[in-house]
Amino acid sequence: MTGEATPHVTDDANHGATTVPPVEELPSTAPPAAPQVDADLGAGERAGRRPPAVDVPELARLLDGRYAEVRGLVRSNLADYASILEEAETLSRADYRERVRDLVVEMAATGQTGMGFPEEYGGGGDLGASIAAFETLAFGDLSVLVKVGVQFGLFGGAILQLGTREHHDAYLRDLITGKLMGCFAMTESGHGSNVQALGTVATYDLASGEFVIETTSEQARKDYIGNAAAHAELAVVFAQLHVGGESHGVHAFVVPIRQDGEPAPGVRIEDDGLKMGLNGVDNGRIWFDRVRVPRSALLNRFAEVSPSGVYSSPIENPNKRFFTMLGTLVQGRVSVGGAGINAAKVAITLAVKYALRRRQFEATSEDAEELLLDYGLHQRRLLPLLARTYALHFAQEVVRGQLHDVLSEAGDGSAEDEHARRELESRAAGTKALGTWHATRTIQECREACGGAGYLSVNRFAALKADTDVFTTFEGDNHVLLQLVAKGLLTDYASDFEDLDQLGTVRFVTSLAVETVIEKTSVHKLLERIRDVLPGGDQWDQEAGLLDSDYQLAMLRFREEHMLSGVARRLKRGMDQGMNPGEVFSRVQDHVVAAANAHVERLTLEAFVDKVRGLPDGDTKVALGLLCDLHALSAIEADRAWFMEHGRLSVNRSKAISREIGSLCRQVRPIAGELVDAFGVPPEMLRAPDLLGTEA
Amino acid sequence: MTGEATPHVTDDANHGATTVPPVEELPSTAPPAAPQVDADLGAGERAGRRPPAVDVPELARLLDGRYAEVRGLVRSNLADYASILEEAETLSRADYRERVRDLVVEMAATGQTGMGFPEEYGGGGDLGASIAAFETLAFGDLSVLVKVGVQFGLFGGAILQLGTREHHDAYLRDLITGKLMGCFAMTESGHGSNVQALGTVATYDLASGEFVIETTSEQARKDYIGNAAAHAELAVVFAQLHVGGESHGVHAFVVPIRQDGEPAPGVRIEDDGLKMGLNGVDNGRIWFDRVRVPRSALLNRFAEVSPSGVYSSPIENPNKRFFTMLGTLVQGRVSVGGAGINAAKVAITLAVKYALRRRQFEATSEDAEELLLDYGLHQRRLLPLLARTYALHFAQEVVRGQLHDVLSEAGDGSAEDEHARRELESRAAGTKALGTWHATRTIQECREACGGAGYLSVNRFAALKADTDVFTTFEGDNHVLLQLVAKGLLTDYASDFEDLDQLGTVRFVTSLAVETVIEKTSVHKLLERIRDVLPGGDQWDQEAGLLDSDYQLAMLRFREEHMLSGVARRLKRGMDQGMNPGEVFSRVQDHVVAAANAHVERLTLEAFVDKVRGLPDGDTKVALGLLCDLHALSAIEADRAWFMEHGRLSVNRSKAISREIGSLCRQVRPIAGELVDAFGVPPEMLRAPDLLGTEA
Repeated sequence: MTGEATPHVTDDANHGATTVPPVEELPSTAPPAAPQVDADLGAGERAGRRPPAVDVPELARLLDGRYAEVRGLVRSNLADYASILEEAETLSRADYRERVRDLVVEMAATGQTGMGFPEEYGGGGDLGASIAAFETLAFGDLSVLVKVGVQFGLFGGAILQLGTREHHDAYLRDLITGKLMGCFAMTESGHGSNVQALGTVATYDLASGEFVIETTSEQARKDYIGNAAAHAELAVVFAQLHVGGESHGVHAFVVPIRQDGEPAPGVRIEDDGLKMGLNGVDNGRIWFDRVRVPRSALLNRFAEVSPSGVYSSPIENPNKRFFTMLGTLVQGRVSVGGAGINAAKVAITLAVKYALRRRQFEATSEDAEELLLDYGLHQRRLLPLLARTYALHFAQEVVRGQLHDVLSEAGDGSAEDEHARRELESRAAGTKALGTWHATRTIQECREACGGAGYLSVNRFAALKADTDVFTTFEGDNHVLLQLVAKGLLTDYASDFEDLDQLGTVRFVTSLAVETVIEKTSVHKLLERIRDVLPGGDQWDQEAGLLDSDYQLAMLRFREEHMLSGVARRLKRGMDQGMNPGEVFSRVQDHVVAAANAHVERLTLEAFVDKVRGLPDGDTKVALGLLCDLHALSAIEADRAWFMEHGRLSVNRSKAISREIGSLCRQVRPIAGELVDAFGVPPEMLRAPDLLGTEA
Repeated sequence: MTGEATPHVTDDANHGATTVPPVEELPSTAPPAAPQVDADLGAGERAGRRPPAVDVPELARLLDGRYAEVRGLVRSNLADYASILEEAETLSRADYRERVRDLVVEMAATGQTGMGFPEEYGGGGDLGASIAAFETLAFGDLSVLVKVGVQFGLFGGAILQLGTREHHDAYLRDLITGKLMGCFAMTESGHGSNVQALGTVATYDLASGEFVIETTSEQARKDYIGNAAAHAELAVVFAQLHVGGESHGVHAFVVPIRQDGEPAPGVRIEDDGLKMGLNGVDNGRIWFDRVRVPRSALLNRFAEVSPSGVYSSPIENPNKRFFTMLGTLVQGRVSVGGAGINAAKVAITLAVKYALRRRQFEATSEDAEELLLDYGLHQRRLLPLLARTYALHFAQEVVRGQLHDVLSEAGDGSAEDEHARRELESRAAGTKALGTWHATRTIQECREACGGAGYLSVNRFAALKADTDVFTTFEGDNHVLLQLVAKGLLTDYASDFEDLDQLGTVRFVTSLAVETVIEKTSVHKLLERIRDVLPGGDQWDQEAGLLDSDYQLAMLRFREEHMLSGVARRLKRGMDQGMNPGEVFSRVQDHVVAAANAHVERLTLEAFVDKVRGLPDGDTKVALGLLCDLHALSAIEADRAWFMEHGRLSVNRSKAISREIGSLCRQVRPIAGELVDAFGVPPEMLRAPDLLGTEA
């Protein structure tokens, strides 16, 4: 909750005796609500349903899914190394870093961190398992998580995905064990999101057959690079490749940056200093002063320079080549999104458990104070966040599955393959954005819901808040990522258009007739589909039941399609008026981001609905159904102004949704404890003896 | 921005050529918008107004107001002791605490911290100046701020406000210089917000004429007490007073807790350990094992125990007595609210200055990257927060003035005096809640708007975020404070009813006919007033100009009145249905908080509008007018769903408001730098050499 008006409260003047002058409402075509005994009761409450009995182990198995085993391994490792949570507070920064490094190497020995690498190099050969392991690691110290992400995801992933056999043979075995530490030197002080504009240059020197790596300006120094300040021996350096006086855009090179603990010749390294969080990770800056590396240092899966200085690439278009290389980052985004969602689980587990113990103020009785979670407001603060955490968990399951499938299959380079890859990149970007924002928001609300006690470091919120904060802007700034999502939607992930930059996209979209863009969008024909599944035909949005998942999905689908076509129309209108394309984009930018957001919200709800529908009848299905309804209606409520503005929500129905959410919160209340237990956060990771009543 | 749908984007289907199927909109009685050349241009843009020229020193003087001198002193002190910002990161926790203590004592010597105490004891005799000094201190290290707050505001304030001359003579002179350090021992592990239920007991021992202070259970230990772990010699201890077997409720006692650096006999002290932030403040826990203090230890302004054990008080009703004592906390709340607002100024100053320097992506030109602040989305993220910061600044000015007036005048105990005091308490509570939530939100958004660079500690966000986090829950949990505000509104601050607890309030409100509650509310007859000032009579909400302040105010007034009467109706309906009052309250609780929020939002906008109206014509007035419009329309937009649901906003008008906000952002854009400069945050407090381009 911010200081702004609480958006979910409707002051419902339609019910109950009143003597104030009646307030005129916008006319609505909705039928009058049926008479109700208690206007505040929701459908489930009126039906007098008993709360479902939640079988925690069964639900936990459902959540862990096919990766229960590796998740179990990580949970057990987390418990074994639980002391790191306290060491993060007591050790000096230098010692904490060393401890994190040691711990990463020890965990690597259990096989936990190498799941995604080929078995022939000692990896697990299962990319999905690798992501699941990473997500689970987010229950614990997040410096460990990020160090793992840098070493095995970014550095290791770049070697694996951008390199070829020669690089794999040279580095993979040692990096999987953590014997060889590396870093991923992409970002520069001057350029983060705009990777195409990096300033570092790698010039091919024909005479020696070497590349010369150079930091061309102060803004071109590599910055915020994890593992750089203390531990990395190698760096994968992204630099503009110059060959024979011609620039070929950004490419990646393996560059030794440290030997025997000292910076390599020509390399200068500086510590980034204290950070808000993640101080167990050694972030640093790197300058290259004409550092020479052999020709084989180019990670050459997508481009090669011959000894005689001839550049070649299987991908002709330089923009497309760049985006293909960058596409290999998709794994990192899927990982970070999942980590954010799991960090949120820790926070919501703490806040719900505390609210089930802590009493404050006499409310229903003169003799006993009330449990926090029995307050309507407290339910409203926490339970929709709990429902959304479940929704994002299942959305993450889908994107993790797609990642596994797309990257595990060789692919034949067909248009279909390309399309699947683009869709994966878009989905990964969107889920990362929503998952990490959800983490920031949930951790904040849960801290506040635990009062002053939540401010003590022993209660995890301090570390959770500080460490996850950067998730929203690293591995792709969330706002930039959502623009990437929108671009994919506007171009239907067509590989011919995916290589467009921002200006190019505006020009492309506006060069088409608006109907062509609509035709191209992947949500095309949604409205027709909606009319097929929902009663009422064109009145679907007024006659369907609020708890009908088809209705909920139809609402989110409608919003997505409408927003997307609105963006296309607005771009075209601006261009037709002769405005500069950049200015047009600037003015439409919030609509672009909103459309992308609507798209990912729809995917998220679909994932949750599909999961619930696929379950056998029983209490678990009922419980998840309640959560799914709570999530869906909360999502609609959060944007109910838009739905009203666009004719898809009457005033009465909007108010009914808010009432139904209150009712769903009351129905989830009795099972809230079980619902957080099923996340399976190891008790050692919760700490918080005072919040949980586990003090000695 | 959270992961939820961006609430401010309307996909306006009414303008521009379109070939998609037309979307049915809710019928609206609003007249069709006048034809526009560019539908996205706002009124100001269409009029082709030139941007106002902002005279920064003039605007800074306006912001500093009557306390420019003391603010200047604090700014100069902050600059002199700027090294504390770095020392907070480099010193050990123990050394940092000592450094903060020393700094507080040194600042005290400049007179800065004693402004609010009587001159006869060495104070400044100006309460308003004291608050202004405190607010300004929030530009710097916040451990220093909180240490000052604990020592001079809470501890010193309790001695001053709850004690009588004997206590003043004994303690004030030494505490003003910082020679005598004290703490404010109210909160216990088991009770924070519910002070009436504290577990510590002070029993009057007739035989010795002493009070015996005792911690009666583990949950009754004092907790999170600032200054307790290391520095305080005295504590003002809040405890249940027992005299002759009878309990008289919570009273305050002066208890020595530390002598020569060691805990006093019978006193046990424990460090609260590492916290999320504010680690320069020594928070701790205190247990009292039958500690004896003389009869004079009772701070006896509102109650006395005679040597023979007779209890007496000028305030007969125990509940009222309790709330009167607690009312002295009002100063702390005004202080914390102001500190939150000023901490937000530091964040927004950094983010705006960065956005005026940092370029990323080619947008309007192929050759140069675009300044962040020229992106529409970036403007949308930052500029409404800037406008709201100004709004809250002026709202704080009003509550500070009221505090000064109410507490500086002796008062005659008349009903009028009482009413003014209650209104002050309510306003202080509400402004504190909105100001501190604004800080949390602004700091977060500004950090994200500075990308990964914002994550480095040198850039201030780390400290700002960690240190301010607890502001929303200390000095009164914000949600509890807003309920206090609502209670005041529902009872019209009547002193006869102010002493009601939660259950009592529900019973009281529901015991009245609803119309009586409406009659009693201070916003009564607003609609009549609205009709008087706005054109259109009953159509005021459709015919007034969006940039008409009377329209904007009328909207917020309408919402407040409607929400408040809705709460009364709902309470009554629940009771009429025979529900338990506590359950009724629980279900209405989110409406209660929303109504209070609406009230404080209205007060905030009124403060801003009044300030602008009082200015002489000129560019400063124009500039603040733009900001005021931006703030007002953003506030309406944030709750536009509610306004639509309650018949006060048509679909077309709602969309027009969103467009106007975009336009106002573009008009504020050219003066954004000057607007943050006028806050006068000392450059030393900004640090952030990389963000601001001040690197060596």
